[in-house]
Amino acid sequence: MKYALISVFNKNNLIEFANELIKLNYKIISTGGTYNYLLENKIESLKVEELTGFPEILDGRVKTLHPNLYGGILSIRNNNIHKEQVLKHKINYIDIIVVDLYPFLKTVKNKNSSHEDIIENIDIGGVSLLRAGAKNYKDVITISDINDYGLIISKLNNNSVDDSFKLELAQKAFSHTSSYDSLINNYLFKKLNKDSLPDILTLSYSKVETLRYGENPHQKATLYKDDYFEEISLTNAEQLNGKQLSYNNLLDANSAINIVKDLNDFTCMVGIKHLNPCGVSIKGNVEELWDKVLDSDSISIFGGIVATNQVINKNVAEKMSKIFLEIIIAQDFDKEALEILSKKKNLRLLKLDFKNNNIKINKYQYTTINQGLLVQEKDLYKHNIKDWKIVTNKKLDENEMLEAYFAYVVVKHVKSNAIAITKQFQTIGVGPGQMNRIGSAKIALEQAGKKAEDAFLSSDAFLPFSDVVELASKFKIKAIIQPGGSLKDQESIDMANEKGIAMIFTSVRHFKH
Amino acid sequence: MKYALISVFNKNNLIEFANELIKLNYKIISTGGTYNYLLENKIESLKVEELTGFPEILDGRVKTLHPNLYGGILSIRNNNIHKEQVLKHKINYIDIIVVDLYPFLKTVKNKNSSHEDIIENIDIGGVSLLRAGAKNYKDVITISDINDYGLIISKLNNNSVDDSFKLELAQKAFSHTSSYDSLINNYLFKKLNKDSLPDILTLSYSKVETLRYGENPHQKATLYKDDYFEEISLTNAEQLNGKQLSYNNLLDANSAINIVKDLNDFTCMVGIKHLNPCGVSIKGNVEELWDKVLDSDSISIFGGIVATNQVINKNVAEKMSKIFLEIIIAQDFDKEALEILSKKKNLRLLKLDFKNNNIKINKYQYTTINQGLLVQEKDLYKHNIKDWKIVTNKKLDENEMLEAYFAYVVVKHVKSNAIAITKQFQTIGVGPGQMNRIGSAKIALEQAGKKAEDAFLSSDAFLPFSDVVELASKFKIKAIIQPGGSLKDQESIDMANEKGIAMIFTSVRHFKH
Repeated sequence: MKYALISVFNKNNLIEFANELIKLNYKIISTGGTYNYLLENKIESLKVEELTGFPEILDGRVKTLHPNLYGGILSIRNNNIHKEQVLKHKINYIDIIVVDLYPFLKTVKNKNSSHEDIIENIDIGGVSLLRAGAKNYKDVITISDINDYGLIISKLNNNSVDDSFKLELAQKAFSHTSSYDSLINNYLFKKLNKDSLPDILTLSYSKVETLRYGENPHQKATLYKDDYFEEISLTNAEQLNGKQLSYNNLLDANSAINIVKDLNDFTCMVGIKHLNPCGVSIKGNVEELWDKVLDSDSISIFGGIVATNQVINKNVAEKMSKIFLEIIIAQDFDKEALEILSKKKNLRLLKLDFKNNNIKINKYQYTTINQGLLVQEKDLYKHNIKDWKIVTNKKLDENEMLEAYFAYVVVKHVKSNAIAITKQFQTIGVGPGQMNRIGSAKIALEQAGKKAEDAFLSSDAFLPFSDVVELASKFKIKAIIQPGGSLKDQESIDMANEKGIAMIFTSVRHFKH
Repeated sequence: MKYALISVFNKNNLIEFANELIKLNYKIISTGGTYNYLLENKIESLKVEELTGFPEILDGRVKTLHPNLYGGILSIRNNNIHKEQVLKHKINYIDIIVVDLYPFLKTVKNKNSSHEDIIENIDIGGVSLLRAGAKNYKDVITISDINDYGLIISKLNNNSVDDSFKLELAQKAFSHTSSYDSLINNYLFKKLNKDSLPDILTLSYSKVETLRYGENPHQKATLYKDDYFEEISLTNAEQLNGKQLSYNNLLDANSAINIVKDLNDFTCMVGIKHLNPCGVSIKGNVEELWDKVLDSDSISIFGGIVATNQVINKNVAEKMSKIFLEIIIAQDFDKEALEILSKKKNLRLLKLDFKNNNIKINKYQYTTINQGLLVQEKDLYKHNIKDWKIVTNKKLDENEMLEAYFAYVVVKHVKSNAIAITKQFQTIGVGPGQMNRIGSAKIALEQAGKKAEDAFLSSDAFLPFSDVVELASKFKIKAIIQPGGSLKDQESIDMANEKGIAMIFTSVRHFKH
């Protein structure tokens, strides 16, 4: 006689599975809830306590933790000493373990759960069974996912349950237990309300999809989703048209979303290329927004990604369809717009609710270095122009301060060293990624050209010398926004005063690499 | 009478700890190895089997998995039903759990371990005890780290073991079990030898240090280390001088190390600023290498990071000390060099063995996007110039092909869109991070200026139009190295032929964002 021990929280498809096991000559052993459910459905099984001689106690906290069971799971079948002991203690071999753990994450996510409810949903016995079965995988089939019922039955029927398949099931079991404990670890750490991060950091993700490739075709890549947090994110967007997003698309689109998020108090549209904004505009209607984004840099937008917190209408769709775009992310697409844009089979259209406030943001971001992980808080700093200082003789009025705000939010999203130039709530020059600041300023100013007159120049970090101010004055820039904090701040202020440029110190830097 | 259950693999400091517990009126319960060790040291304890009435079986695979123990751990002390059951089954409350798990990771890392040894070192009972104690943390003190002995004893003596401290211990226990199972998960997944990544990805890291801040002062940050892999990395470097590295230092220094790693067949030196190389040179002695790195971009190197696979000597040290550098990473520093450079208190000097081949590289890198994780293989592609095609009439000799190789390895490490210009194994122009390729080319060529004559221009991705070739010819570039693959390749080839420029197609792109 072969034995299968079943202890599952989620009873979906259990009856069919149990009947198939019985057909395959397995005797089923089960615990409280599972036993009763099987019985209601006319399937008789052995109660765990019939094997242990010990009843379930402590409201089910202790059910299966007994050597009569664990001896039957963990004994190595072809080990003679084990064999003797199994005989001596009248232990039954257990050949299949089926466990569906208590829903810890679901309980955490449920707003009505108390801390006690959450703690009660930490499964002790189930995890132990899975781990024991998985450790002894050569002799035990361990099922940690109720979606595997069909596969298991067909494998058993085909007699194709070999060591390699059992190893796969064992690995899956440990992926479940490690993920499960990682969520518990994170929940408890949050509960501690500490200022620092934990000594041991464990992270757990679920696969969304294997990507075609990574940054380059010779690099394999996979997208995973964090099960715990919820954000305005690509994993929450609804794809209405086009093929799968690539690795580079995902990075670019994520950047685009974060810029829109940061300017969500306004109507906003963003164009992205190679992780940098090539066009950003706010405050107009959706058509004006697009006209400005296109006007910002009509070369770089080619093959780019656009994101907006507005609804794409027919007029904009017609204009957009004249340009080669990879992705459009929008609050929504009206029916005619969707028709027009869907004609391009490859153009990805993503609907994303930028107004969703009911979210639980992971405030940390992770980056790998060789043999290490850098964890930092995301740059979620929200500026208030009331905290800013105008350090020059020339001052700015309310509307100009808003333009300055816009210019500074944009430069926060440009790769360092970063200079952005804006005018009438539109970018007209973006200088990203240079190893010295004057280099970035040149790029941005040369792109802006004559439009730079009366425009606003923002810098993601302080100006180390007065050279950027001097160059800006040649292009007739009206105002410069920078954090300040250089040893040579005064030289920049003096130069600005000399050239009649207004300068704001924000005191908060925004490096982004 | 209070009970403490102790089951530890590592017996360090156990005797002192046990004696203190006894003084505090605890009765010790222990398992096989721990029991014998205590007895040898004249400490009597209760054998687990005295409480369970069940002997240890299966070579210790089943020792503690018994309701008499788990009832004593998991019962809620102020719950009347639990109380009755505990009384009825003559269960002793267990108030302290001390577990040091089997050394799974150490066994994996030991080259003499068989797969069976590794599997045997998956701890079942110990993990179950920790998890049970941690679940019932309000009533149980759970010790998962033998380094906590002293803290626990002093807290017990002070009567300061409160709920919040016990919660902290519970969280620590779950951080251990989740990390432990994550390592098992990863080991088993590797064993499966699959082509794709697992459905559930669990990662585990140990804290190295809290950093002063992240990319910007308002972002908190922490550095973690991967316990499983070994690489030529900052976590393996020895710091000989200077203060703690900052978040941005770590990113920059890591980039510098990876460029040197990629050019490790040569003598090599790299200067880095904002994650981009501002100077790279190979093939000279250490002094020549430095002269060239400095000459590459004497402005950007200010405040930069230098890395070399050579030993820094007195002459180089004297030259370097004239420039403000943040970090120097080298194979070594000779005595005089160390003296000279150590005079700058803030200058970080790191000794790193670039010749270490005995390493186990994590081939994946991770990047977060909102609510997700992007996993991709690192770009470890090694080019062989024999695979490259010269597509123009003009050809290149062996030494020129080596220069082309150098130019292409450098551009791989420049942020996209990337253009690099090299001459005599030294960079003379680097154009990073632009949203269009001609923009990057302009930056690099303008930096190179007159030096561009007879130099080599490399592009990390294909040239979409012939404009880069045309611009390169104005600067008298000798050869262009690019992957090829654009629809308009032929236009670029025609332009190169017209201008007498040699062009290589490598067929492998190197985007890096």
